[in-house]
Parts: sequence; C-alpha cells; structure tokens
Amino acid sequence: MDPYMIQMNGNSNLPSVLDVHVNIGGKNSKQEKGKGRKARWSVRPSDMANNTFNPIRTIVDNMKLGTLDWGGHCTPHPHPHGLVGKDGRDPTVFGNLPTDPEVTQAMKDALDSGKYNGYAPSIGYLSSREEIASYYHCPEAPLEAKDVILTSGCSQAIELCLAVLANPGQNILVPRPGFSLYRTLAESMGIEVKLYNLLPEKSWEIDLKQLESLIDEKTACLIVNNPSNPCGSVFSKNHLQKILAVAARQCVPILADEIYGDMVFSDSKFEPLATLSSNVPILSCGGLAKRWLVPGWRLGWILIHDRKDIFGNEIRDGLVKLSQRILGPCTIVQGALKSILHRTPQEFYHNTLSFLKSNADLCYGALAAIPGLRPVRPSGAMYLMVEIEMEHFPEFENDVEFTERLVAEQSVHCLPATCFEYPNFFRVVITVPEVMMLEACSRIQEFCEKHYHCAEGSQEECDK
Amino acid sequence: MDPYMIQMNGNSNLPSVLDVHVNIGGKNSKQEKGKGRKARWSVRPSDMANNTFNPIRTIVDNMKLGTLDWGGHCTPHPHPHGLVGKDGRDPTVFGNLPTDPEVTQAMKDALDSGKYNGYAPSIGYLSSREEIASYYHCPEAPLEAKDVILTSGCSQAIELCLAVLANPGQNILVPRPGFSLYRTLAESMGIEVKLYNLLPEKSWEIDLKQLESLIDEKTACLIVNNPSNPCGSVFSKNHLQKILAVAARQCVPILADEIYGDMVFSDSKFEPLATLSSNVPILSCGGLAKRWLVPGWRLGWILIHDRKDIFGNEIRDGLVKLSQRILGPCTIVQGALKSILHRTPQEFYHNTLSFLKSNADLCYGALAAIPGLRPVRPSGAMYLMVEIEMEHFPEFENDVEFTERLVAEQSVHCLPATCFEYPNFFRVVITVPEVMMLEACSRIQEFCEKHYHCAEGSQEECDK
Ligand SMILES: Cc1ncc(COP(=O)(O)O)c(C=O)c1O
Ligand SMILES: Cc1ncc(COP(=O)(O)O)c(C=O)c1O
Repeated sequence: MDPYMIQMNGNSNLPSVLDVHVNIGGKNSKQEKGKGRKARWSVRPSDMANNTFNPIRTIVDNMKLGTLDWGGHCTPHPHPHGLVGKDGRDPTVFGNLPTDPEVTQAMKDALDSGKYNGYAPSIGYLSSREEIASYYHCPEAPLEAKDVILTSGCSQAIELCLAVLANPGQNILVPRPGFSLYRTLAESMGIEVKLYNLLPEKSWEIDLKQLESLIDEKTACLIVNNPSNPCGSVFSKNHLQKILAVAARQCVPILADEIYGDMVFSDSKFEPLATLSSNVPILSCGGLAKRWLVPGWRLGWILIHDRKDIFGNEIRDGLVKLSQRILGPCTIVQGALKSILHRTPQEFYHNTLSFLKSNADLCYGALAAIPGLRPVRPSGAMYLMVEIEMEHFPEFENDVEFTERLVAEQSVHCLPATCFEYPNFFRVVITVPEVMMLEACSRIQEFCEKHYHCAEGSQEECDK
Repeated sequence: MDPYMIQMNGNSNLPSVLDVHVNIGGKNSKQEKGKGRKARWSVRPSDMANNTFNPIRTIVDNMKLGTLDWGGHCTPHPHPHGLVGKDGRDPTVFGNLPTDPEVTQAMKDALDSGKYNGYAPSIGYLSSREEIASYYHCPEAPLEAKDVILTSGCSQAIELCLAVLANPGQNILVPRPGFSLYRTLAESMGIEVKLYNLLPEKSWEIDLKQLESLIDEKTACLIVNNPSNPCGSVFSKNHLQKILAVAARQCVPILADEIYGDMVFSDSKFEPLATLSSNVPILSCGGLAKRWLVPGWRLGWILIHDRKDIFGNEIRDGLVKLSQRILGPCTIVQGALKSILHRTPQEFYHNTLSFLKSNADLCYGALAAIPGLRPVRPSGAMYLMVEIEMEHFPEFENDVEFTERLVAEQSVHCLPATCFEYPNFFRVVITVPEVMMLEACSRIQEFCEKHYHCAEGSQEECDK
C-alpha cells in the first residue's frame, strides 16, 4: 500500500477541482514562515507547492472509491476485470501494447556500447538532437540540431516552454477540454490560465472567435494540442491554418503539444503545425511516450520553429539555461534514439494504429447505442469523449458522481471529464484489450439502463 | 559543432559571474512583455529564464578558450592529452571508470521483463522506493518507502527540496566553496543565497559562528554538502553534530546533499547526517550518479527524515505534488534499482575508491611540491582544491585568468574556483587515468615554474 495515496486521499484541505483557479502567491504562508524562527519549528510548504494541483489526482483522490487505487493497478473488487481508463494515459498498462523489440534492442546496444553512462549536455547529446532534427525535418519546416532540446518527457518540454515564455501574472490560452498538465504547470508558476472552447459538435474544433476574444496584452502563448487528449480529435489542415491566422494577427507564439503526432487513423492526416506557417514562432513538444509506447522512459523534446527570428537567440538561450537545472533525460534512451527512430518497423506503427482504430470503432458503436450517452467519434490519439445526458440520470449530480458509481457498481474506470475542465462528459481510454473494451461497454450499458430516467416531456424516448 | 556553445559564448549580455548575485524579479521584461501585442511580435524570455545562471557555464563560456568545448569533449589542440577536470563532475569521461557489469545487466533485465515501460507514479515505483528505503535504513535513521521520492538525478532532488521549502524572498544557506547548482536553482526561483564559509585550514570545516550569524527569520533551509564538491572533504561526526546543534537551536531544516555518501577514503568515515539527530528535520539528497558511476542515467532521490513530524504531511504532500510536474525518472533505471543495489560486488566500490585515493595522493603530492600552489588534501568524493598564491603570479589577475592560460599553454583543464564562489583556487578532478593525472601535474609544474615570480620580501623562497 502506498502511503502517499492515503495521505492525499485524506487531505481534506485539497480544494475541489471546480474551485481550483488561478491562485497566485496567495495563502498566508509567507507571513507564517519564519515567524518565530529561533523560538520553535515551523516548516511550511512554499506557495509554489501549494499552488501545484493535478486536477486528475485531486478529483480522483477525492472520489469515493474505497481502496481502489485509480492511478495504478486495481485492487480486489467484486468485478476484477472490465477496467477502462484508469487515470489513464498509459498505453502499456495491460501488456497488450508492448513496444517493438527493436526499441528494446536499441537500449541494450546503447548499454553495451558503454558510451552513454556519462553526463550528456543538459539539452541532450548533439548526435541525438541531430537524429530528431533530421527525423522531423521537412522542407516547409526545416530543423537542425540547434532547434532541438531533449527533455525528461513531453511534460518537461511543456514545463520549459511555459517557463521561458511567461512571467507570473501573464496568461496562457489552454483548450477546454484539455490535458490537465497545462494548468498544473501554469498555476504553480503564477501564470494565469484562460480556457478556450473546443466544440464537440464540430469534432472538437476550436471556437476561434472565443479564442481570439481571450487574447490580451498579457497573453504569453497559445497551447494547441493536436491530436487531442482527451478528445482523440485531429485538426484539419484548414482549421490549423485558421488557428495560425489568429496567432499571426495577435502576435501570440504557439506551444504545439504534438505528443500524439502521427497517431491518427487512416481516414485522417496529421499536419505538424509548423509546416503550415513560416511566420508564427512555434515550440512543438513531443516525445517517445505514445508513438513508441514507452512513456516511462521519459524522453521528450522541444522543436524550435522560428523562421522569422522572433524567438531569436534569447528564447533559445533561455531554454538552454532552464534545461541546466536538472540536466536532461536518461542518456541510455538518448543513445538508443537513432535506432529507435530508424529501426522500428513500419508494421509496428501500423499495428498500433489499426488496433486503436478498431477499438475506437467498437467502443463508439457500442456507446452510441446506449440511451443517455453520446460519444464523439475520435480520429486519433488514444481517447474518446462521451457526453452524459445528465437530464436522464437525475440520481447523479455530475460526471464525477456518475463515474464514481460506475466504478462502484461495475468496476469500470472512466475519468470524469471535469478533470479536463469539461463537466458532464467522461473519457474512455481505447488502449485496453478488445475483450475488456467490449466487457466494459456492456457494463456501461447495464449501468446506464439501470439508472436511466425519462426526462420530462420525452416519454416516447423512454419506451425504447 | 554545437551551435548552443557558440550562442552562449557569443552572448555578451551574460554577466560576469563575479557580478551574479541575488537578482529577484528584476529586469524590465515584465513591462516590455506584451506591450504592443497585436501590433508587432515581441517574445522575450521570462525573468525566471533570465535569472537562471549556471556559474560554471557562465565563467567557462566567457573564458578565452578559442573553440575548445569545455563542457564536453576536447577539440583538436596542440596538446591532445593531459586534460584534467573539464567542467568536470563526470567520472566517466575518460572511460577508465566504467560502471560494474552487474549494473548494466540489471538494466537489460529490466528491459527484458517488459514490466518497466509504462508510467510509474511520479515519485517512483513503490517497489523501487522500498529498495532505497531498506538500503539506506538504519536504526538511528529509519526509512520506509513513504520517506523516499525518486527524482531525475540528484539535481531534481535538490530542485524539489528548495521548491517545497522556500518562497521567493526567503533565503537559504549555501557553502562557499560549494556546488554551483544551489545558487542556480535558488536564484531562478527568487530565493536569496547566503554563503557560509568553509575553512581550508580546517580541512574545509564550516565556520559555524559565521554560519549562525547569517540565519534570520527568512532562512528556509541550510544546505550541507558532505562529502564535498569541490573540496573532496569529509566532515567528522563531531563536526556534523555541531552543525546539527546550530540547526536545532535556530530551527532551520537541513537539505543534506549526500550524493558522494560512502565515497570516502579508508582513513575517513561517512556519517549520514540524519543518523546523528532525532529532532532536526532533514531532506537527504542522493542518487546513482557518483557511487555507481552512471551520472547520465538521471536517477536521484530524496530521503525524508522527520522523526519529530516537523515537516509533517504538508511538506511530504508538497514534494509529491511538485514531482507530478515532470513525472519522475526513467522507469528502466527504476526497474534495475534492486539489482543495482544488491548485485553490485563490494569489489567494485572498493576499486573505485582505491583508484580515487591513489590518484588523490599522487596529485596532492605532485602539486604540493610546486612553488606557488597549495593543495588541500581530500578525504573523499572526486575532487581536490588547490590554492594559487596569487602574489607569486602577478601576470594573472585571478584564478580565471590563471586557468585560462593553463589551458591555452598546456591544455590542462582545471575549473577556476570562482565557479564555486572561491577565488584564487582551482579545482582538480581526480577521476582521470593515472598517466593523465601525472602528465597534467607535470604540465602544471612547467606552467607554474614559467610564471612564478618572487613576491616582494621573500627572496629566499625564490631560490628553490
Ligand atoms: C496531451 C499530452 N501532452 C503531454 C503528455 C505528457 O507526455 P510525457 O509522458 O512524455 O511527459 C501527455 C501524457 O499523457 C499528454 O496526453
Ligand atoms: C554536490 C553535488 N550535488 C549534486 C550533483 C548532481 O547530481 P546528479 O547528476 O545526480 O543530478 C552533483 C553533480 O556533480 C554534485 O557534485
């Protein structure tokens, strides 16, 4: 049993995530701190620690789940199978999506060479950065080693980008629904988060008008996550061009979180944002986690696209300086990078995607048939969002209660989309084995049938 | 050629390190930022990026070294051998200190198991934290898994500790001479650095009176680095007890940087600080980098010692929350941890230490015989500090000029101790192969003989 889980569960001071909002420098810890030093001990956590909230943790840890550890493995429970999701970005949890043997072999070769045990430069080995540059280089968005910074996962890539671009008191534009780390990082640094809307009825395209209306003179950057966690959506070239037009008009640089780049089903196409603009400065964040199915290895990167020299040397130097704080990702993974990029067979990528596509179709089909649920069809990544027609489930206050009961009654774990700032939806992770996916869908059906109530004035619907 | 090096070399805005001092929130970037958004592009690095200085990089990059890349490998030069030090904390650079084959095998086993590719909890796998806890547990300083947080190197361990303990505007106590990362991290977070003195004539013990005089109500923690980088010194039990007495009297928690723990020569003994106190709360930082000779793997840890519950759950939770920003170290290394700790043969540790001890003796002996130099004998770690009697080298303004010329004329790289806030010393790294060590010492001798001048009123000395 991990005592940290207990402590966090038991911490009644954690605000409900619905209350979590920009909270800069607040608390009275400054006054408390040090007062009475020499007289008595008083060691309080810093404002930064207090302002670091992971909404997923906060919500999930406060859910009434008994001893279930939502973030890791499941503990004994009436229904031992049928889990969907968990806190859920880990494609490897069920063992059905292993990485390719070439990827593992590349690590062994790096180990055997004995050349990758020492310190690398804090931004990564030059040779590894060259590999990334040439792998992602294309004529419309050229890259050299100097444009690449290796990081400890895409998470640290995002952290460095926000840290270099924004001062406390500035704001950033973040998608709703969207990956919670953006807010977690921003608020811990005293950066305000402004949420722009994605529209489910338009396959989660951005509400561009509303986006543009949020921009003010304190806006430090626009985060674009494509393909999307939690939506599984993939933006068209046309839509991306419109986003770039907003950025260009408003002179706002873009942080493109493209960790799911190239993870799109065959009926869609992934367009790296930087290939579509020659003037908007873009920091594109990526990593090995998703496409190569090794999230634990913690190798990510920043690709600096700045063809009009707007970031200039200052932002580049800033990123380099910030990287020196913790000195980059594991060198063995860096050493293995060349082989990982070049030896992984096409088949591997293909198989991953057809598995995801078939699971997505299966899940979408099954959930679309359930009265009271409205799934949105995904085109990539590893997720699918499902709307709960709350008027048909009057027993439940919101998505958190809905998913809480879904776990309790059916042992099916789905994240309430409140974790992504999007109440009344839940997110399904489509990386689980097919039989579990089917089982989970049928349990969700059972659950919904049991709790479904006719909304007033729609009697016919209830007869079905 | 790494363009980052050029950029940093060419950046004339970098302040000389002698000027680098507490510099909180300064600069006018806040005003600049955003002004004129919508009209024109203006993307400036944040104050945090601007305030992140690595003194080693700043000094070394500003040294007149032509195209030599001080931080990595050496480029062609009249004297291709004989390098000592480099920027220098990397024991693996010359290939003479490989890690043990068991350590490499442990990584391969972790890879083959297929169990360590997914996300671990952000503070590390419970099983890996249990391993660290039981390895470092002792009756006087008991440890359980809940007291261990795994990090991306000892650097991130230090970062998290400072981030949780101190708010902007508070101060921390840092050794002089001392490892530059403390200042780099603190100043980037707006935390003031107060330097306490180590005394070379007392084998680098702390000037306790001066230390205590620095403490005020804003003091958030005391950093104790034992064994020391750059001094190679090891504190006695008695001295550590006196340090603890200061902390207890003043109610200041301790960050113990014990990354060189157990790396002491046989005539000394390493005492983990936490074993000597049951009331002072201590965060002990360590990692695999030094003892297991794999600094690039980036596995570090924080051991939380808090037997009087002064940190309490709040500081623990704060560390957990901060760890969620970038999600911990590489899982393969975590998976290998058990075998690394238990299968590495005693012989390996023993051989590393006898190599270091013999190199230390060799180097100390050779340098002690050179007029104008005064080495201080080390008892552990990987370094040795040498005083330059500047009055005998009037050609050189300071240690930076001295070491600059030493590179230029003799291709011997030693870091000027100004990098460690200690002018007129330089640091030698004793991990290089013995023949290089000897060659380097004889070149230093040649260099000193050439530039030695008698100080006024000491004619006799000059006759030798
Ligand atoms: C949209 C998005 N960005 C970034 C990340 C973080 O990736 P990494 O594990 O490489 O830090 C995730 C992980 O789930 C993600 O979904
Ligand atoms: C005293 C000291 N602390 C911490 C570190 C950082 O260790 P790591 O490489 O594990 O981040 C070093 C590295 O040289 C060091 O000398």
